[in-house]
Amino acid sequence: MDTKLQELKRHLQEVSDLDSAAALLNWDQTTYMPPGGAAARGRQIALLAQLSHEKLTDPAVGKLLDDLRSYEESLPYDSDDASLIRVARRNFQRAVKVPASFMAALSAHMAESYEAWAKARPQNDFASVRPYLEKTLDLSRQLANYFPGYEHIADPLIDYLDYGMKASTIRAIFSELRSQLVPLVEAITSQPPADDSCLHRTFPEAQQIAFGTDVIRCLGYDFERGRLDKTHHPFMTKFSLGDVRITTRVDEQDLGNCLFSMVHEAGHAMYEQGIRMELEATPLAGGTSSGVHESQSRLWENIVGRGRGFWEHFYPKLQAAFPDQLGSVPLDTFYRAINKVQRSLIRTEADEVTYNLHVMLRFDFELMMLEGTLAVRDLPDAWHARYKADLGLRASDDKDGVLQDVHWYGGYIGGVFQGYTLGNILSAQFYAAALKAHPEIPAQIARGEFGTLRGWLTEHVYQHGSKFTASELLARATGGPLNIEPYIHYLREKYGALYKLN
Amino acid sequence: MDTKLQELKRHLQEVSDLDSAAALLNWDQTTYMPPGGAAARGRQIALLAQLSHEKLTDPAVGKLLDDLRSYEESLPYDSDDASLIRVARRNFQRAVKVPASFMAALSAHMAESYEAWAKARPQNDFASVRPYLEKTLDLSRQLANYFPGYEHIADPLIDYLDYGMKASTIRAIFSELRSQLVPLVEAITSQPPADDSCLHRTFPEAQQIAFGTDVIRCLGYDFERGRLDKTHHPFMTKFSLGDVRITTRVDEQDLGNCLFSMVHEAGHAMYEQGIRMELEATPLAGGTSSGVHESQSRLWENIVGRGRGFWEHFYPKLQAAFPDQLGSVPLDTFYRAINKVQRSLIRTEADEVTYNLHVMLRFDFELMMLEGTLAVRDLPDAWHARYKADLGLRASDDKDGVLQDVHWYGGYIGGVFQGYTLGNILSAQFYAAALKAHPEIPAQIARGEFGTLRGWLTEHVYQHGSKFTASELLARATGGPLNIEPYIHYLREKYGALYKLN
Repeated sequence: MDTKLQELKRHLQEVSDLDSAAALLNWDQTTYMPPGGAAARGRQIALLAQLSHEKLTDPAVGKLLDDLRSYEESLPYDSDDASLIRVARRNFQRAVKVPASFMAALSAHMAESYEAWAKARPQNDFASVRPYLEKTLDLSRQLANYFPGYEHIADPLIDYLDYGMKASTIRAIFSELRSQLVPLVEAITSQPPADDSCLHRTFPEAQQIAFGTDVIRCLGYDFERGRLDKTHHPFMTKFSLGDVRITTRVDEQDLGNCLFSMVHEAGHAMYEQGIRMELEATPLAGGTSSGVHESQSRLWENIVGRGRGFWEHFYPKLQAAFPDQLGSVPLDTFYRAINKVQRSLIRTEADEVTYNLHVMLRFDFELMMLEGTLAVRDLPDAWHARYKADLGLRASDDKDGVLQDVHWYGGYIGGVFQGYTLGNILSAQFYAAALKAHPEIPAQIARGEFGTLRGWLTEHVYQHGSKFTASELLARATGGPLNIEPYIHYLREKYGALYKLN
Repeated sequence: MDTKLQELKRHLQEVSDLDSAAALLNWDQTTYMPPGGAAARGRQIALLAQLSHEKLTDPAVGKLLDDLRSYEESLPYDSDDASLIRVARRNFQRAVKVPASFMAALSAHMAESYEAWAKARPQNDFASVRPYLEKTLDLSRQLANYFPGYEHIADPLIDYLDYGMKASTIRAIFSELRSQLVPLVEAITSQPPADDSCLHRTFPEAQQIAFGTDVIRCLGYDFERGRLDKTHHPFMTKFSLGDVRITTRVDEQDLGNCLFSMVHEAGHAMYEQGIRMELEATPLAGGTSSGVHESQSRLWENIVGRGRGFWEHFYPKLQAAFPDQLGSVPLDTFYRAINKVQRSLIRTEADEVTYNLHVMLRFDFELMMLEGTLAVRDLPDAWHARYKADLGLRASDDKDGVLQDVHWYGGYIGGVFQGYTLGNILSAQFYAAALKAHPEIPAQIARGEFGTLRGWLTEHVYQHGSKFTASELLARATGGPLNIEPYIHYLREKYGALYKLN
């Protein structure tokens, strides 16, 4: 058995190494690549993806997985080896259901569609990307149909990023959350708006980066096993457990933009950096789902990084870094500014209360498009109508409407948005469980000490990588299933105090 | 035929793309990778190298090459297609002679040996790398012996970087060159030494980079298809014809270090950037030999960049960039400083007259080690003795002796040094031919105009990539075979004037 397991691991290590190489090519494309490199780069990334897919779906892998079944069953469920075989089998079975030729066609289409979107968005030109999006919808349906027997056509697609979740489950969760959020948003926005002008003075780039670097180092992001670069859209990427990088962007007229995106991406990165080194270069060496991943970025960004205790520690340092801009701004003014709630048009700039409304409407549109109850041609109007209904605003154009997010233009339609809101919900559940175990955490945060919280997260979430599904992990860490109560409680407490709600 | 040719091209494109991906992983390793990334990175590069080798030696390639032979013979020798098939066959035939298992063992050994050297060099510890070097010598002999029928055991190794050259030919060229150089060095060094103190004031890094960037942009390095980064050792690397990058290092106490390394690497890069786009992602899309490549870096670095005309144009700009350091230094003082000739211990810091003596002794040692007339254990003493004899100096340790160059520690022994001196010789031959066609070039250079020279080089050298061997290219460009006269003439004229020799 040991030989076969070693053979499987060697094979999967090659898959992982090819994926990591592709990830580096992609990172370079967004950070340092000169314009002339683009044409070849797309082809090179596609080749690595194809080779990785071929290696993963090699019949030899299927044979090894069959041969290892009895060994797997002899091991405890949560052992590294049993988990490796289990997750590898899941990945293999999913991958072999989709013909390589389809994957290649989908990848090629996604690259073309992305290019079309990148050109169309600044020109507010939905018409030019509409045929691409229609083809994307068609391919997304085809992809789902390689997994017959689903309850909802979105389910197989949701499975890619949030394994085990179903459209029906998410719909129920979102509906419940929505019924709580709508009156909360109503209550907050009927109060006088917070004044966030202190964030919109001029903050030089170098000092913003320096301050943010100090903050995330203090939180626990390890620069010996990572680095920070600038990109148009911030992201986290990983080339091995020893090389987990993040990117940020800087707006000199918006202090929060760079700082909170750095904390957000550092949250993702600390999850990956916290995975046990024994899982390196296996399918277990990555976050277990989009929801759990987002729970870590949002926990650090919002629950910690936009918390009052956090700024009791960091605000004097921030004032020292920007004495002219913030020297005379009281902590409470700053705290209110970074937590300003307002109805707005752009998801990525939304506050943590209204944010989920942006996500839910996208999720609903995905289901409707896949079901065939919403045609791509009707999407822009549907978008505007729903924003008007949910957020009371109508974008003046499609650029800030249906063209704003890259997801559907650079990927498939279905299952690509729910993770953001699942992450918000989970962030509060994990944090509540950590507090229950360590009630001293808030006091520590206010002293700039993050070790206890990070230690709890490492023990209960990070170290396991993908050994457990999101719901298994949640049950082990918090004792229960997904539950919106801690999140609603967190929002009510925080924003009730901030906006003096009764 | 067309289908088979397309199939061959597609196959070779994948080889090229895998090599480019590996090159990017390597570039990142030396520029931006955090320390934690090292372990996985070595493994990832090795995997890409292995996959590339497997693709190149795929029997399907051999079959296609056989099938295409009559088509090749129906085409003009210098057509793109005939050249592609010819060079692909040469690469294929060379690659299939070496077992994949040997290549893997050699690569793994080279990586280990490099690590050992990187540790041993600062500690001046030849003893600890000696077993690695002995194994390298052994593997180098094995590698050569996969190509039986050679005249000298170094010949198959020389073939890798300087196809078509032989140890005996190079020995004859070097012997002739040496007989001319030794008295020249003697004559120069019997004169009072040049004063280069003006180069050793403090030159802030940012201004050095900015000035160097302006210079190489003016020479013709295209930043839209390349970029500059900092590394410990400067190098040029390519990920496609649209992405040819260079690196430099900066010593704030040595103005020449960064500037001339930038011009040197830009010379390599302009060669690659000048290859016709039609050859992209084929085996023809690269410089044809180490000697020809080096001729381009040295032509731009030395013949152009250390020429008096060049500084007639650039020196006022340099003075403007560094007014405190150079404002009162006359052009001639500066010109003498950047062309200071002296016997020295370190190859990479040697002036252009003595430089070749450093190369020749390494070349001789390679042949002797391969022949078995010099044992690795005797190398340090032989090194010191030869430096004493050739350059009149003895290093105080092995760090500045036999440990100074990475080549034998990160690669095989044999054929890895001759290109530097062949490049010097060829640089003068190409330049002389360009001058013959365009006698106005020196006057243009003195006005900061490089288009005519770059145009001639593009037409006669760059655009062809690897279509022609070094000697074919030389014959087409200059009308004759390799010949040291132009180089000797160039050195005599330049240094005769500088050092007032009769």
